Amino acid sequence: MTRVHHDAQVPGDECVSGIAGIRCVAVIGLGLVGGSMTRDLAALGVRVLGADTDDRTVHSARTEGVVHSSLEESLDGIAEADVVVLAVPVDEAPRLLHDIAPRLRSAALVTDVGSTKRSIVAAAQAAGLGACFVGAHPLAGDHRSGWTASRPGLCRGARVYLCPTETASLAALELANTLWTALGGVTEVIDAATHDRLLGFTSHLPQATASALAHVLRDAGVAPHALGPGGHDVTRLAASSTAMWSAIARDNADHLDAALGALEQQLAALRDAVRRGDVDAVQLFFDTAREWRTSDV
Amino acid sequence: MTRVHHDAQVPGDECVSGIAGIRCVAVIGLGLVGGSMTRDLAALGVRVLGADTDDRTVHSARTEGVVHSSLEESLDGIAEADVVVLAVPVDEAPRLLHDIAPRLRSAALVTDVGSTKRSIVAAAQAAGLGACFVGAHPLAGDHRSGWTASRPGLCRGARVYLCPTETASLAALELANTLWTALGGVTEVIDAATHDRLLGFTSHLPQATASALAHVLRDAGVAPHALGPGGHDVTRLAASSTAMWSAIARDNADHLDAALGALEQQLAALRDAVRRGDVDAVQLFFDTAREWRTSDV
Repeated sequence: MTRVHHDAQVPGDECVSGIAGIRCVAVIGLGLVGGSMTRDLAALGVRVLGADTDDRTVHSARTEGVVHSSLEESLDGIAEADVVVLAVPVDEAPRLLHDIAPRLRSAALVTDVGSTKRSIVAAAQAAGLGACFVGAHPLAGDHRSGWTASRPGLCRGARVYLCPTETASLAALELANTLWTALGGVTEVIDAATHDRLLGFTSHLPQATASALAHVLRDAGVAPHALGPGGHDVTRLAASSTAMWSAIARDNADHLDAALGALEQQLAALRDAVRRGDVDAVQLFFDTAREWRTSDV
Repeated sequence: MTRVHHDAQVPGDECVSGIAGIRCVAVIGLGLVGGSMTRDLAALGVRVLGADTDDRTVHSARTEGVVHSSLEESLDGIAEADVVVLAVPVDEAPRLLHDIAPRLRSAALVTDVGSTKRSIVAAAQAAGLGACFVGAHPLAGDHRSGWTASRPGLCRGARVYLCPTETASLAALELANTLWTALGGVTEVIDAATHDRLLGFTSHLPQATASALAHVLRDAGVAPHALGPGGHDVTRLAASSTAMWSAIARDNADHLDAALGALEQQLAALRDAVRRGDVDAVQLFFDTAREWRTSDV
């Protein structure tokens, strides 16, 4: 969190009155991540503009005082913002970038919170926002979603991947770092292609696996309450926002395809060892997995 | 927890001095579950006999006062026990039943804590222990294992499946219920075959899935610390005791085989939809999984 002197002429009179270089942030999409950001930004003394397709959400955010002004559907008011954050499903972000590009005036940074980065970074470049766009992906979601799940401190301690366009300015990257660090995130710069491959394995595959496991249990006539603590954890993500994950699966289809294929192969190998009663192979399978999982945690 | 009058002639002088009908319990295997049981049983005022293949574990348990007397390798001292609990890997339990059967004298109940039930129930019957054997499976483990992971209250609030032999006495079943309820468990009687099919899906498949996912991530060159909270949860079980899970996978091979095959099919179906860019099919896949996962939790 960056604290600045509210009045430099009164030394010692420090108070939370904004983030260095960021006076006004527009957050488009007040779901779990966007909504949580408005709470933290407002608490940091930043002026927050908000927009959401659900009028009740905007009303709640304004009533709670974490959104100071709502953006009209035209998004014209966005001209006031120093920073614009897109917190919408990954398949809606490209169109939105195109819509807001001509309306921006003083924005030094446009960023987002999506789980895939190649298409949004390309869309920002295509919309003429290459210099000020630094995509972001905070690893801060959970299986709950929407404004009602939003809360202060969601990003505290979370890794936040930053994916600048190829033509992003150093100033935009520094401002993105300032913003996300102020929200408690631990930033890491990574190119969009590397991000999407990595997250295909570390995030999208675990999500798809949890949902596939839910299908198997459902088809077997098992109720969720029959799960023990382990099965509960492994299937938890199946309760996640399905619109969000469908969009991610489509946007990162190539990497998810490869990751799913690799998982099918591992399951088939275990199944083969189990069927054959191959004691050593089964033991080695669990040993190797355990060695990896306990290697640096 | 059952409290009994320490001295019936002094009304009001209630204290924790045992479990009704259970004066002395022998626990063989002082790992996560067995070790935790000794802590709770001792706290309830029960005399606890303990055995473990690791002498240091037995020494620790005696030093901490939760095991009052250690059983020699011959297990002759077991004759003193009202209840015998086998808390060893599922592939060791049948041999152990055979060894202890001739040494039992006053035992009204022999039970266990294994994750598979068909083979142990059959072995108890074969060992002539049909009348007093009621297998048990507390859903209380986690990815940690061994004596050092044991702790008071492990079974508190946990579902405990009870699987009596076909010839088990009602008294043995009632005593098993008394024991597990005193430890805080919520008991449910189920036949061994039904148990093994159910757990193949609710427990063994999630474990195998977590381990298979660990393999995929390892092969992709991903480190565990790169996981977000979701991926962390889905792979957590991969850190479980591998000896325990290898034994379970072998003992419940038929059901695990079927469950793994069903998961492969679901993953292949999702992969196919992702590759084809079938928006509706991908959305339906996540929707159906979410509907199940949120249906009664």
